[in-house]
Amino acid sequence: MNCIIAQSGGPTSVINSSLAGAIQAAIDNDFDQIFLSLHGIEGIIKGEFLEVDKKKFKLNEAKDRLMARPSSILGSCRFKLPEDLKDETYNKIFTFLKEKDINVFVYIGGNDSMDTVKKLNTYILYNKIYGINVIGCPKTIDNDLNGMDHSPGFGSAAKYIAHTLRTIRADVDVYDLESVTIVEIMGRHAGWLAASSLLADYGYCKDLVNLVYVPEVDKSLKDIENDVKNKLKEEKNIIIAMAEGFRDIDHSLDKPMFSNTDDGFKHPVVSGFAKRLADYLRDKLKVKSRSVELNIVQRTSTCISKTDSDEAFKLGYLALKLGIDKSNLIPVLRRKEGKDYEVSYTEVEPDLIANKEMKIPKDWLKDENTLREKITAYALPLIQGEVDQTYENGMPVFVELSDFTK
Amino acid sequence: MNCIIAQSGGPTSVINSSLAGAIQAAIDNDFDQIFLSLHGIEGIIKGEFLEVDKKKFKLNEAKDRLMARPSSILGSCRFKLPEDLKDETYNKIFTFLKEKDINVFVYIGGNDSMDTVKKLNTYILYNKIYGINVIGCPKTIDNDLNGMDHSPGFGSAAKYIAHTLRTIRADVDVYDLESVTIVEIMGRHAGWLAASSLLADYGYCKDLVNLVYVPEVDKSLKDIENDVKNKLKEEKNIIIAMAEGFRDIDHSLDKPMFSNTDDGFKHPVVSGFAKRLADYLRDKLKVKSRSVELNIVQRTSTCISKTDSDEAFKLGYLALKLGIDKSNLIPVLRRKEGKDYEVSYTEVEPDLIANKEMKIPKDWLKDENTLREKITAYALPLIQGEVDQTYENGMPVFVELSDFTK
Repeated sequence: MNCIIAQSGGPTSVINSSLAGAIQAAIDNDFDQIFLSLHGIEGIIKGEFLEVDKKKFKLNEAKDRLMARPSSILGSCRFKLPEDLKDETYNKIFTFLKEKDINVFVYIGGNDSMDTVKKLNTYILYNKIYGINVIGCPKTIDNDLNGMDHSPGFGSAAKYIAHTLRTIRADVDVYDLESVTIVEIMGRHAGWLAASSLLADYGYCKDLVNLVYVPEVDKSLKDIENDVKNKLKEEKNIIIAMAEGFRDIDHSLDKPMFSNTDDGFKHPVVSGFAKRLADYLRDKLKVKSRSVELNIVQRTSTCISKTDSDEAFKLGYLALKLGIDKSNLIPVLRRKEGKDYEVSYTEVEPDLIANKEMKIPKDWLKDENTLREKITAYALPLIQGEVDQTYENGMPVFVELSDFTK
Repeated sequence: MNCIIAQSGGPTSVINSSLAGAIQAAIDNDFDQIFLSLHGIEGIIKGEFLEVDKKKFKLNEAKDRLMARPSSILGSCRFKLPEDLKDETYNKIFTFLKEKDINVFVYIGGNDSMDTVKKLNTYILYNKIYGINVIGCPKTIDNDLNGMDHSPGFGSAAKYIAHTLRTIRADVDVYDLESVTIVEIMGRHAGWLAASSLLADYGYCKDLVNLVYVPEVDKSLKDIENDVKNKLKEEKNIIIAMAEGFRDIDHSLDKPMFSNTDDGFKHPVVSGFAKRLADYLRDKLKVKSRSVELNIVQRTSTCISKTDSDEAFKLGYLALKLGIDKSNLIPVLRRKEGKDYEVSYTEVEPDLIANKEMKIPKDWLKDENTLREKITAYALPLIQGEVDQTYENGMPVFVELSDFTK
């Protein structure tokens, strides 16, 4: 048996844990050749791939080192497969898979990538291809994947954000004058990460994060102004955690338009609203006001949750194993009922995930205290434990592809 | 004997190590009362202060926990003492110091704060005050303090920047298309921190950081465009490390003016140029281009260099000790000649530091390779070793003032 593994979509801090899991499962299940496609499905289309050297993988402790290495080590792509199954691209992909005698293809990615998994399986079905199983493995920091309790990648990003908000609070409190600090956090359509900034407050007797603005909640500029004014009565230095996709309901600050129309992948550039809002509040309230964009560091940091990393590993492992007998599936996490955090693993079809988005439940957004309570119960277990880095010369050293490939 | 300690200027990740050092020295030298002024000199003027509880300090391991706690725990200010020594402010300060029987006042801060130390000593001299010694203790992440080999605070910021650049490189390499990522790093007039991003490259066979722009070097927009074009011939995804104070020589992108005239302390807002440059390059070179501002996180992160923290502690310790017999001095670091990194401690007068700035030497800036070589030899020893954080519930927990004060 041979297999191929690829990574797609935006990086996370634990996407390589899923890769490590899939490789480990292939080794444990006596796969002959374990291929790694570079830059997602594009590597298969272009024939750019590597092969795992099982001896080196073990010898160089690549499993543990992959679990400490943020961002997609295989590279990624944002390639959307054509709707037309007769398109030449499909032929190229399956010619490659047959040539290399691939039995299992594991695609680690987000909802766009699960669309790829879905289409490849439709192609398999229509063309009656036997012996090639295509399995998805979920990842995203945004936690907006449907059909599961939470997405691998979210816990580590939430941990980084909560950790960073604690240090930002330490900075913000330094001066004895009124100030507003708006922290812009990833999340285009869902506010999971912005909301998880509230974890920073856990165990403190005062709030470190004072206001949270997420795309799921409607606020006018006037509402925001009033929120800030009221908070400033209680607290000198206020911190607002804001999802990058949040806008005031009237889009009052959207003109002039944001710097560019798209990021090169047809996703519009949405960040930068925090800066505008900071300017607006400074002007209106005559208060020191600034914005901090956490930017790409939040999806690629070495602040990795052990819980998240272990779960991502397990999902990768299960994905590869599922592919031995089945196709068109994605392993996912379910949370067991009960006081203590415990998960079970099951699987769903890509149709449940592809092109869909999970948002924060409406009843969590009733008021700030409810959101704080709900998100803490939900996300605190996901940020537990730390993954140690290997330091050399004062900096973390990451595993390289050459450490475990031929 | 009594003493008082205060922190001033912008936070650093090790400014509390200097505080820990000063407190420890006061305990070791049998000071009776150890006061802590809140928000720098303003605490003395307003009578806002705390007193160290020596038993709690020991019992709660405050020394070690302060050395792991980023950002000024006593708060800070940007208060500039009046030039006129007859101003009422001086009277207020010395009335307080006499009332509390203060023999030693240690002021931990940057070049603005050393101006305060200088003025207080001039006041002491003119008014023939005996028994009150005012000593400075240096800190700044910018490394622009004159009269010393390097500033405490710089090593940790450099460590955070180099560390973060490694993770940004891991993110940037993910897509198989040309891209430019501009990382905006603190430094208004000196490029020490931007240059120290080059440490990220150490031990790698390819450059992780491709271009460095610092305020000390003149570049036109055309020069930058050509630099980027040339680098893109060798490397698909290029990273530019840019000091926030860097501008193209013609200031072509300065209009419309930056968001606000000052940050509330009469320091102009200088950040945001990276975003404009990213927009410009995207437009000119038709390339995916983005900016990442490291922002306040770089001065307040938990990525603390053990070397830096230990040196900051020692300087705080020496500052308090110096104050027992002398006034108008600042302990500083000197680097010993020789292959291995070793420092000695000496002291200088505040006049050498106050209101001055140390820039990167001209001969380091001859070309990129020279800068890489020079900054590596200079700064690599300063980022060695890690200070462990105490984690609870997946997040770092910091020492609080109430853990070691009455």
